[in-house]
Amino acid sequence: MGKLYVIGIGPGGLEHMTIKAQEAINESEIIVGYTKYIDMIKPLTEGKEIFMTGMRGEEERCKEALKLSKDKIVALVSTGDSGIYGMAGLILELRKDEDVEIIPGLTASSAAGAVLGAPLMHDNCNISLSDLMTPYEKIKKRVRNAADGDFIISLYNPRSKGRPHYLRECIEIIREFRDDNTPVAVVRHALRDGQETTIFNLGNFNEEIVDMFSIVIVGNSQSYVKDGKFITPRGYKLC
Amino acid sequence: MGKLYVIGIGPGGLEHMTIKAQEAINESEIIVGYTKYIDMIKPLTEGKEIFMTGMRGEEERCKEALKLSKDKIVALVSTGDSGIYGMAGLILELRKDEDVEIIPGLTASSAAGAVLGAPLMHDNCNISLSDLMTPYEKIKKRVRNAADGDFIISLYNPRSKGRPHYLRECIEIIREFRDDNTPVAVVRHALRDGQETTIFNLGNFNEEIVDMFSIVIVGNSQSYVKDGKFITPRGYKLC
Repeated sequence: MGKLYVIGIGPGGLEHMTIKAQEAINESEIIVGYTKYIDMIKPLTEGKEIFMTGMRGEEERCKEALKLSKDKIVALVSTGDSGIYGMAGLILELRKDEDVEIIPGLTASSAAGAVLGAPLMHDNCNISLSDLMTPYEKIKKRVRNAADGDFIISLYNPRSKGRPHYLRECIEIIREFRDDNTPVAVVRHALRDGQETTIFNLGNFNEEIVDMFSIVIVGNSQSYVKDGKFITPRGYKLC
Repeated sequence: MGKLYVIGIGPGGLEHMTIKAQEAINESEIIVGYTKYIDMIKPLTEGKEIFMTGMRGEEERCKEALKLSKDKIVALVSTGDSGIYGMAGLILELRKDEDVEIIPGLTASSAAGAVLGAPLMHDNCNISLSDLMTPYEKIKKRVRNAADGDFIISLYNPRSKGRPHYLRECIEIIREFRDDNTPVAVVRHALRDGQETTIFNLGNFNEEIVDMFSIVIVGNSQSYVKDGKFITPRGYKLC
């Protein structure tokens, strides 16, 4: 009898993986994933069979992982949390009677938040700007509702060549509701090799530096920057 | 020279802690935290000095941790992600020149999501129903905006003795925007001892079983339950 672990490896740096994720990879005979994700966990994959697919090969990858898991122990890996914009949903949609276990990992907003300081300390939301599977009008409505609700907003997949102007348009929507001095941070490669951080505010934000390896975090009305750290107060009245 | 690690230990089960969090606790001479959190990591604290405080002792705990870190290596621990409703914000607000490192952990919605299946696969938000530091009117506005924006909604601190009716009122707000067959799940003690899961829908939801050890996740308009698993589709058009 086989088994399929659907594993979120977290941001990419091996030390930010959970112990459970690492154990499940160790136990697995076959590792399935997008080429770049497999590279990130290379030290853990030695001697194991590897099944890699390119970018948009999600459905193929999931079907193969399910098939292989009928008689082998298989790890399907992706970055971040397997349950947040990851592979857990597609696997459970496609599953018939395979034995599947979802192993969560640190999502990109948690990783970027820790790098920046403490931007996510209060009510917050994750919005993907990818319109591959969501109409852009719906994305903009979510950004507007989140801005009006004073949520801290983490933007996933913030900017790609096919839709370079979405990020700027969404920032302009948020500016209708928040002061220009609200912090906006860009973290590229959070908690993995190549990490870069830039803190702007809504007034001077420059989207040119943002790419698909970045996450953008916009503070709420109470957020501020102190000694280079992006802080959203929880609301304690300090003595 | 001392150092302060602000550590999110994740849901509580030691295997869901990151390797980095475990290493930082091992390296620390003093562990600071709320009594219940220290109990969860007992196997890691042997031989270390412990500074415990009760429930609402957050400010005292943070000040003590900062003071101790001037010449010792100190771990300030809390459950979930230290940067989401955790201690990272208060520490950075109070910090003068102490050496502080924020170490993220799995937040409760990620943990509960993995237990349930894949409810958080699309745009999602975290809202705390605690009104200790946020006016209830603002909380309700956030719930309304999130419901109208078709976000998956994770409710933290969903129900306490002092405000037993808030959860019901917030569910009624969400019902103005979503079908009664939308899944609503309650997970108590996600990914730690005593884990219990119940999946309702908006129409038959019973808040009586919810307490402060629970998290409540409400699906978006596309969420459904299949073979006992709570799934929100990412939107792939399956062949």
